[in-house]
Order: sequence, then C-alpha cells, then structure tokens
Amino acid sequence: MSTKKKIGILGASGYTGAELVRLLLRHPRVGLTLLTADRRAGQLMGDVFPQFAPYELPRLVSIADVDWAKADLDLVFCGLPHATTQTVLKDLLAKAPATKVVDLSADFRLTDPKAYAKWYGHEHHALELQSEAVYGLVEIYRRDIRKARLVANPGCYTTTAQLPLIPLLKAKAIEPDEIVIDAKSGMTGAGRAAKEEMLFSEVSEGFHAYGVGHHRHMAELDQEFSKAAGKDVVVSFTPHLVPMNRGIFATIYVRGRRGRTAQELHAILTEQYAKEPFVYVLPFGKTPQSRHVRGSNMTFIGVAADRIEGRAIIVSTLDNLTKGASGQAVQNMNLMLGFAETLGIDQPAMFP
Amino acid sequence: MSTKKKIGILGASGYTGAELVRLLLRHPRVGLTLLTADRRAGQLMGDVFPQFAPYELPRLVSIADVDWAKADLDLVFCGLPHATTQTVLKDLLAKAPATKVVDLSADFRLTDPKAYAKWYGHEHHALELQSEAVYGLVEIYRRDIRKARLVANPGCYTTTAQLPLIPLLKAKAIEPDEIVIDAKSGMTGAGRAAKEEMLFSEVSEGFHAYGVGHHRHMAELDQEFSKAAGKDVVVSFTPHLVPMNRGIFATIYVRGRRGRTAQELHAILTEQYAKEPFVYVLPFGKTPQSRHVRGSNMTFIGVAADRIEGRAIIVSTLDNLTKGASGQAVQNMNLMLGFAETLGIDQPAMFP
Amino acid sequence: MSTKKKIGILGASGYTGAELVRLLLRHPRVGLTLLTADRRAGQLMGDVFPQFAPYELPRLVSIADVDWAKADLDLVFCGLPHATTQTVLKDLLAKAPATKVVDLSADFRLTDPKAYAKWYGHEHHALELQSEAVYGLVEIYRRDIRKARLVANPGCYTTTAQLPLIPLLKAKAIEPDEIVIDAKSGMTGAGRAAKEEMLFSEVSEGFHAYGVGHHRHMAELDQEFSKAAGKDVVVSFTPHLVPMNRGIFATIYVRGRRGRTAQELHAILTEQYAKEPFVYVLPFGKTPQSRHVRGSNMTFIGVAADRIEGRAIIVSTLDNLTKGASGQAVQNMNLMLGFAETLGIDQPAMFP
Amino acid sequence: MSTKKKIGILGASGYTGAELVRLLLRHPRVGLTLLTADRRAGQLMGDVFPQFAPYELPRLVSIADVDWAKADLDLVFCGLPHATTQTVLKDLLAKAPATKVVDLSADFRLTDPKAYAKWYGHEHHALELQSEAVYGLVEIYRRDIRKARLVANPGCYTTTAQLPLIPLLKAKAIEPDEIVIDAKSGMTGAGRAAKEEMLFSEVSEGFHAYGVGHHRHMAELDQEFSKAAGKDVVVSFTPHLVPMNRGIFATIYVRGRRGRTAQELHAILTEQYAKEPFVYVLPFGKTPQSRHVRGSNMTFIGVAADRIEGRAIIVSTLDNLTKGASGQAVQNMNLMLGFAETLGIDQPAMFP
Repeated sequence: MSTKKKIGILGASGYTGAELVRLLLRHPRVGLTLLTADRRAGQLMGDVFPQFAPYELPRLVSIADVDWAKADLDLVFCGLPHATTQTVLKDLLAKAPATKVVDLSADFRLTDPKAYAKWYGHEHHALELQSEAVYGLVEIYRRDIRKARLVANPGCYTTTAQLPLIPLLKAKAIEPDEIVIDAKSGMTGAGRAAKEEMLFSEVSEGFHAYGVGHHRHMAELDQEFSKAAGKDVVVSFTPHLVPMNRGIFATIYVRGRRGRTAQELHAILTEQYAKEPFVYVLPFGKTPQSRHVRGSNMTFIGVAADRIEGRAIIVSTLDNLTKGASGQAVQNMNLMLGFAETLGIDQPAMFP
Repeated sequence: MSTKKKIGILGASGYTGAELVRLLLRHPRVGLTLLTADRRAGQLMGDVFPQFAPYELPRLVSIADVDWAKADLDLVFCGLPHATTQTVLKDLLAKAPATKVVDLSADFRLTDPKAYAKWYGHEHHALELQSEAVYGLVEIYRRDIRKARLVANPGCYTTTAQLPLIPLLKAKAIEPDEIVIDAKSGMTGAGRAAKEEMLFSEVSEGFHAYGVGHHRHMAELDQEFSKAAGKDVVVSFTPHLVPMNRGIFATIYVRGRRGRTAQELHAILTEQYAKEPFVYVLPFGKTPQSRHVRGSNMTFIGVAADRIEGRAIIVSTLDNLTKGASGQAVQNMNLMLGFAETLGIDQPAMFP
Repeated sequence: MSTKKKIGILGASGYTGAELVRLLLRHPRVGLTLLTADRRAGQLMGDVFPQFAPYELPRLVSIADVDWAKADLDLVFCGLPHATTQTVLKDLLAKAPATKVVDLSADFRLTDPKAYAKWYGHEHHALELQSEAVYGLVEIYRRDIRKARLVANPGCYTTTAQLPLIPLLKAKAIEPDEIVIDAKSGMTGAGRAAKEEMLFSEVSEGFHAYGVGHHRHMAELDQEFSKAAGKDVVVSFTPHLVPMNRGIFATIYVRGRRGRTAQELHAILTEQYAKEPFVYVLPFGKTPQSRHVRGSNMTFIGVAADRIEGRAIIVSTLDNLTKGASGQAVQNMNLMLGFAETLGIDQPAMFP
Repeated sequence: MSTKKKIGILGASGYTGAELVRLLLRHPRVGLTLLTADRRAGQLMGDVFPQFAPYELPRLVSIADVDWAKADLDLVFCGLPHATTQTVLKDLLAKAPATKVVDLSADFRLTDPKAYAKWYGHEHHALELQSEAVYGLVEIYRRDIRKARLVANPGCYTTTAQLPLIPLLKAKAIEPDEIVIDAKSGMTGAGRAAKEEMLFSEVSEGFHAYGVGHHRHMAELDQEFSKAAGKDVVVSFTPHLVPMNRGIFATIYVRGRRGRTAQELHAILTEQYAKEPFVYVLPFGKTPQSRHVRGSNMTFIGVAADRIEGRAIIVSTLDNLTKGASGQAVQNMNLMLGFAETLGIDQPAMFP
C-alpha cells in the first residue's frame, strides 16, 4: 500500500529480528522493505526462520551493500552487535538524515560519555549521536520519544526492574541503598550464537546464576536509578537462567522509607500505571507468572509484604523478546511515526 | 461496536477456550458477550487465565443460567465434554434456532449414527442435529461450511493426518491399506484436567506412546479416509506425548500406487495447496518442525522418499490449539458469518 | 543375605518413596521388607513406578494391615502426610519400640511444642516423641543422630539454606537481621498429588513465585537460625518454581558483620566443610549449577562479593529428592545403624 | 587398591565420557588412570564437568602426549571422532598390544570393508583391526565379546532397534521387507559440539525429524538385520529429536510372517530375554516410557497388536548414554575383563 511507512531491520537473523518480523507482518501501517544479515546475505528469511517461509519478505542483504539514500527508509530497527552499531548508524544517518532509528543495542543507552568509556573500555565512536539519543523506556520518557530521531531501546533486565522501581524512587518511598534484584531470564535472552553453554543439554533440567557481582547491564540501571532518586544509587543485581525460552522475572527486595508499608508501595504503582496499556499491577499480595505475559507486550507487577518488618517484595515480569526488546521497539516506533501507541502490539499473551 | 457479531464460548475455562479468547480479542468483527464455565461460574476470566486480567470480558456463568433466546448470540463455540454437548446444543438450537454453532467436541463428527453408536456405546441424543452437522475441515469442505448452521470442528490429530492424505487418497496415488501414521502431540492436547499422569514431573524429560492399537480418534479417520478412497480404509495410528506444550507432528509412511514416486506425491500436494492460506508444502525432501507453526493457524507439510523403494515419508505438523482446534474453529466462524477467511487468525508463528 | 537390616518405607508411592527405593536397592547392608501405600495397596511397586518392574520388591500394603511387632523392622522411613505421621509413629513405636525411625515429614522438626501449635493450629499428638526427636541435619547434629531412635529429616529448602548459613551465624560473621533467601525449586518438590497448577502445561515454559511472604517452611528456619545466632532471627524467604524436575537453588544475600568480607565468609565455609563428604565449597567467586548435583547427595556452595560494599552473595544448591529428602534420610539411617555414612549414597551426579 | 584394573578414557570431555566417569567412579574393580581431551588438555575433569569437582581424577591430557607402553592400561574406552579413531587405535595397539579396547565410534562396526568404503567414502585406515573387531551388542554376541581385544560398541539407535528385531528376524517371525522404525532421541544423542540447531531455544518446545531418508546409522542396521534374516534387509528408519536430555524411543511397525500374531511375537521376545539382566519385556499390550529407563542400563520392550490385521507395533526404549553408549561399553568391559556382567551398571533408573 502506498501509504505504508518503509521499515528496515538491521541484523534480522537473530531472535529480536524474528520477533520484529512477527510483530510487523501484522502491523497495518508499515511494510518491511529492507532486511540485513551479513552472514546470511542472499538467503530468504524463511531459510533462517522457517516460520516465515509462507510470507513475502525482502531477501536478506549485507549492510555493506545497502545504499541508505536510495533505500529511503522511514525507520530502521538496529539489532547489531555492540560497537558495530555506532559505526553503522553514524554512516546511515549521515547519508539518510531523515531516517529514524530505534537501536536495540546498548550503544546509546548511556548519556554520560565518561560512563560509557568506563564500562566499555574505549571512547564512544559517535559522540554526537550519543547526545542526541533518547532513552526509550516509554512509560517514563514518552514525551521525548515522540520527537526523537534516535531512540535507545532499553535492555530486557533493566526494563523489568525499572518499571516498578523508578516510580518508587522518584516518590522517595524506598531506601535506595538496600535494593536487591534477583532476576531470572529465559534462554532467548542469551541470543542465537552457537555456544556450548547454551546447548539444550547444558541448560535444560537445571538452574544457575551467571556473572554474579559484575553484570554489564548495571551501568544502565545505575544511571536511571540515580536519576530517579536524585543521588547515586548502586543496586545488588544477580541474573539467573531458567530453562524456558521467553520471560524475565525479577524478585525485588526493598525497604520502605520513613515507615512506608508494602501496601503504600503498591498504591503508588497502581496509581502510576492505572492508564498504561502495557503495565498491569495485580491486586496487593498477588504475584504474577512469566508465562502469562508470554508473547505479549505486557509487564505484570505484584507487591507483597515481606516477613521482615518494614520490607516489601516486588515481582515484575515481562517477555524479554517483546516488551523487553522488539515489542517495546515497535511501541517506540509507533510514537516516533505518530501512530497509536498500541498498534500491532496489542495481542494477548499466549498461554499455554 | 454495534456492528460486531455477538459470540459465546461454552466451556471457556479449558485450553481451547483460552485460545479462542486469545484469537477473538483481536478479531475486528466480533465481540465476546457470553463465557460459560460451570465449575468457575461467578469468576473472572482473569482468575482462570491470568493473562486475560487486563482485558474487559464478561464474567463466567453457568450454562444452566443462560437464557438462549435473550442471549441473542450470532455464533457459539462449544467446547463441552462428550455427550453433554449433545444435550446442550439440542436445547440451545431449539430456543435460539438462528444461532450458529461451531462444536469442538467429537459429538457431531461422525455422520453415520451406527458408527457413532458403535464407537461410543450408546445412541446419539441429537440425531436430527447429527445429520445436519457439516464436518469442518475447511480445505476440504469449504463450500458446505459457508451454508452450515452447525459445524463439527475436526480433531487435532485427524486434521494433521487428513490434510496430506485426503488429496493423495482421492487421487488414488497411495495404497490405502498400508498407511502408518506415527503421531506425536504436545501436552495441551490432553486438556487441563488434573491427572497424575499429566503432572510436570511425570511427563517432562521423557517420551511415550499411549492407547497403542485403540485410539478413539480413529472413527473420524476411518470415515474421512474411506470417503476419500471410495472404499473401506483402516489405518495404523499410534499417538505419543512429547514434553512440549503445543504441536502435533505426524510422520506418515505410505506406498505409492502403480509406481507413483515420492516426488509425484509431493507434486499433488503442492498443487492442491498452492492457494490455501493455511497450508504450506515445503520443497521436496525437506520436512518441517512443529515449533515453526506454534501459535499460528498454519499446517506445514513435507514429503521425502523412503529408503524402501516405492515408499514415501510424509511429515505434517500444526499447532493443536490453533489449526488443530480454536484457530480452525475461528476459520469456520469466518466462513459461516461471511467474513474473510483469514480474519483474526493471520498471525505468524511465535518462534522461539 | 541374612545379615541385612530389615527396612520399611511408609508412603512408598510418592517421589521421596521412589527415591528411597532407588537408593536402597543398591545399598549393600539393607533389604526392603515392607512398603506401604494406602491407596495403591495390593499393587506392585512396578505398577506405581514402572522403573522398578524388573526388581523383586514386596507388594504394597495398607498401613492398617501391618503388624508392627511381627514386621520386626530395624528401621522405618516415614513419608506420610502431616498429622497422620504423628498417629502412625506413636502406634508403631508403642508396638515395636526397638524400631528406629527417619521421618521425612515436618511433624517432628520443631522442638518447641508452642511453636508447633502456633504454626500448625493444633496441639501436637505425640508430645513425648517430639521431645525425643533429633533434628537430622547431619553436618550439624551428627553426634546426636548416631544415638537417636527418631530422627526428623530436614526439609529441602531448609537444608539448602542452613548448610551455608548456620556456620556463618555461629561465627557471628553476618548480620542476622538482613538475610534475604531467594529460593528456587524443581517441580518434584511439590509432590505427586494431581493438582491443576502442577500440570505440565501450567508450569513448563515459565517461572513464578509462590506463597510470597508466608511459606510454612519458615518455622524450621527460624528455629535453627535463632539457635545458631543465639538470638531471634527472622529471615526473608521467597520460594519459586522452576520448570525442571529436581533441584533446589538458593541465592542468599547477606551483609558481613564488623567488616567481614565475602572472602572471609568463603574462608569460614571452606574450612567448615573441608572434610565433609557431601558438601563442596567452590573456589571464591564461582557459583554452582543445580544440574551438577542432580541425583547425588551433594550440596554445592559458592560465595561471591556483591556490588554493594559490605555485602556478599551465597549460592547453595542440592537435589531436593536426594540431599533434600531421601538421600539425607539414608545418610541418617547409615549413622543410626552404624554403617559408613556414605554407604549407598556415593553416586556422582547425573549430568547431562 | 592394587588389584584394580587400570582404565583410560580417550575423549573424556564429551557426554559419553562423562557418563563413563559417572559409572566407573563407583565400579569396585577398576580405577581411572588416564583421561584425554585434546582441546581441554591441562584442565581438570571438574572444569569440564563440574559434577566431578569433588572427586579425585587424573588431569586431562592430550592424546599426542600419551606414552601407550608406559601407560600400561588394561582397557581403554575410545570416544574419539570418526576416522581419528582408526589412526589412534592402530598406534595404541601397536605400542601396547595387551591393552583391550571398547570403541564407541562407528569406525569398527562394519565388518565388510566394502560396505565401510561405500558409506564413508574412503578406505578404512586400519583394515586388520576392522577384521579383528567384535560387534559389541552383548545380548547377541556375548560369547565372542568375552574373548575379544577390540569391541565395537553399537550405536544408540541401532541397539534400540536390534534388541527387539534380531530375535524376530532370526525366528523368521516377521516380514523383513516391511519394517518401519520411527525413532525418537533425546538431545544428548547429538553430542556436545556448539551448533546453532542444538541451542536450547532452537530445540525446546517443539519436535522434528532429521536426515529423513538417509541417516548414516543405517549401514549398521542393514548389516545386522541382513545377518539375522539370512537375506538382504533394508528397513525404513526415521530419526526425530525430542526436547529431553536422555532417551531413545523406537516405535516399530512390523507384519507377522505366515500368520504370526502380535502375541506370538511377544512370546518370542519374552522367552528370549527372560534371563537377561538388562532387557525387560513388558506384559502383552503394555508399552514403556523412556523416562523409566533414564540413567539405567535397561532396555524396556513392549508389543501390542496393530489395528491393521496381521501387523504388530513394537516399542523399545533405552537411555542413549547408558545402554545406548557408555553403560553398554562398561557391560562389554565387564565381559572382556572377566568381571560379573552387571558390576557397576546395576543402578535402577532415576525417575522422576
């Protein structure tokens, strides 16, 4: 259809690429006109993800072969690896400055160039873009996102933790120095690269933590939590892997400030998210299951009192490929292109 | 919206009920106005399936409390147990004769009352409806379905086996007396009733056959295969359970008639299904995976040559809750209500 | 063999019963002479657990039909439900006072009759036995267990948490008021009773917490932690369910007292368990996976520094059916009958 | 202990290597004195498989660094890749001719050099050893194995299919030209190499066939079935992958010869295996589950009548890592070293 916006996906052969295609194939206002995948260039999307074999989609091409000006894209989703992203987007936006970008990597999430250099061990290669980028946590930065050309889509762990904690930190309702986040992720969060430790027989029928004490997602959490709290915040964060495909589940242990009870924390979140289409706060004392958001763009949040007086337990869960990556990216796109925010991402979860 | 058709689901607390709600919540031409679930009457759908908590849906009621005339339903999906179905539908259609019905039970699938009595051990309680019912395998009976008031939605195993075999039997391209169907199903096919043998720890990390030699789905297969072949056909059929939620996968062993090769069988199916929106035949020699149709209404079919000369191996797979039950039911509804056949069931599979 | 001790299992049709049979069939010093299972009385063990069909085992009987004096058992494992246990063991020990008992229920774990009454809502029915019972956490109470007639086998969650925490509390190395235990369990921990929420399709492909804020295992933890710390201790404890069969995995967040570092905590545990056959402390900074203790009687413990200064993260994992139940029960039996402690339970984990 | 036999494992870092270590650590008559793993040379077995960290085991070495004469091994298990095996064993047996070998690769399973050359595309590099090798299917070749120096351990699929079919073919009780073997395997059968198609998210929650029409295990089946039938036999064989770790499950469709009924086939197998410690034939009409042999060296076989008159369905299941590989290898070792056949491999299955 002539009125459909032209969309590209860079790095379409990974799981977030497949999730974007799944969602966008049914989006009424856009058409996929460019799919890149360097190592699979020349192949069909149906060769890489057989579920798409029955659909008409552009053949996969190499990024080096794309003429950005000619491509004339309205918006690009960028799912490239760290560092490569900076170089590619710098080039793209130089040649096609009217194209908008939702970047799914971590490259543009940190606003402070010094923080970036510290965490990644080198200077940022696209400093001017870094300062332009808007952090794409829709429920917090919706207004800025509408006007942005470059949006840095948040990580899956960090979205799960921020949605319940940012409003509580802003309200100064919890102690910022005693936050413990015990996070659990499904396997798709680890990507599609062939590694021994991700083989079925290595990860099924068991449970484990990884990166204990030094997970790289923490820079993003530090930044946003400190901004919300108005002071430096360092949280305890431990990620684990669950033998399931999709889902992030965070059990968060907090202490109320100045006598705030768990029920008061619950009230703050209930009010904050009453009108949000993609955040649902359960009744007090109830906690959600990751399977009940599977495949949807929803975040489910529950709050209960802890046995230790003065403390509360917050549970937050979402689908790491949808609200934790590609679904939120489409939500950002909808805002950036002036569509209804829920367009194409309003399907209920698939359970069982 | 005033122009939306009014839809009811009888037996909404089971897995096929949840799948209907998932699909119909996004269907642009219908509204759910009645949900029944006798044991959960008075509860919200979100109590029974938490993924629906954020959506507005009618409260669950008991069938005994429904006034069919007042309910004024355009169409009812019936997911009640065997036998109960006959009684309820007889009553419903007597009081609201203009309501259309898609029945997901096995009660109206057999056209011969004698076959019914033999397989189920008693006379059919709604003989006049049985003769009215149209068998709802869309790709075969599309024309009759458009005009039907009562459609008997096919079983999941039988849909998987019939889509590849009916065209081959009609073309007299395979020996009807040497068909071996080795079928594998995900666990949702066994329903939501609490049984020891369906507990996670009983069925994960293992594989087994069940009902070897005497599975009840065979009556339906016998009827349709005999009709297609023009002679009595009895097939070998063995169902197995796979530790996964969704998916039916059938490996079918056949012998070509009069020298028909596997490639010729492949050509027949490719031609037959070239324009069907929900059947995709892979290139010759390739076979599909159940995960690539998960959550979609697609059937994927592959054909390869067997090592034994003159024989072929056919693989057919679909999602038992979608094309194998609720998706096909919506496909039937679309035809019966005059909508586009693919409306509301065109989402691609969700993988991973 | 004439010198083999005569062993009975009460409640042999559950998962802990099956695990006891698995371990005892290869134990060189004992013979199984009594298996009870009231609802399966008259059946063979191979009917209830087909893996035992090839083995010679006594037929299942009802407890009511057992003559305790005649049975002449050296030791009984009791895997009966709460409350029933008290009545049955009172009767058994009255009629066969020389029989020793390892009880796998929670009935005799609390030493304080008042605590029992508070948590369970009624008086204990066998008060004299409650005072006689020894708490069977071998690594802590080995000496008492050797002389005991009645041992209360610890729970699976509590064993996982106590093995790392008891030595640290005794050494006053951690703050007793800031302990957060985030625990994850495989599905066998929920038993074999047919419940909707334990069906494969309800628990696979997802993750959730349960009993947030009020789990019944806490009485046992409170008792033992308070004893170790020499003051009342209330911990935060949140259990979760993982879609796997076996394994308990606890991520424990602690703060060191008086400047104790994570490395010092690690040193205390390493020294404490250097000679224990069933506790292995990993090198500092490394954390274990539940799958690497599967089917073995081992507990693996890891310690790492937290990002928040002064705090440490302790990970502890064991197989809930082995060290968390039946394996530890056999370990107790070995001590009570004077065998080598590791006899029959020295098999390495089964991974993959 | 001085009287323990000295055992080596070549290729200890794969799953069959880990399974050998698991079984041999508890074997009372042997000690592990050599473990090789070229890419992991210098590491501990506990680095490669953390479940072995608490055990004393020799450090991993590179094959090139082994002095076979000095190593003075009584028996070697060889789990090296195809072709490499031939070269290594030729060298080993030249330098240490008294060492016995159980080879787990396919290199010595084919007795006919021409068949080998045809299937593998090159001449065999150790022809004299090929003619010396004994095929290690214990229940069929027990007598030859006792005297053998080099035993070719059978494959997992082929063991599963041969145990029920060889006696029936020898008895001329089934039609040799109409055998259809529909085989399903757990993921460990695919090994530990990092491949995209073996990642958790690629293989969980789904089912698929592979190598349809041309699986390499067929050479071994052709050879043994032809020998048993006394004529050339070509069977239909289709392997599938099940999202589970361990287990092979074969559903085998056969036609009785000269009116042989399913019950007669059952009687032949029951008699054949009445005294075998590792083969259990279920009562007629019952079929086994793969989970009930998990971790054991058992094969469970069931026979039922097919719906098609004159045909029968045979189900055979074993653990691919135990009876399908390392357990059968230890069974072979026991015979070759004069031990009791069941020593060290008599543990019951681990279910759940």
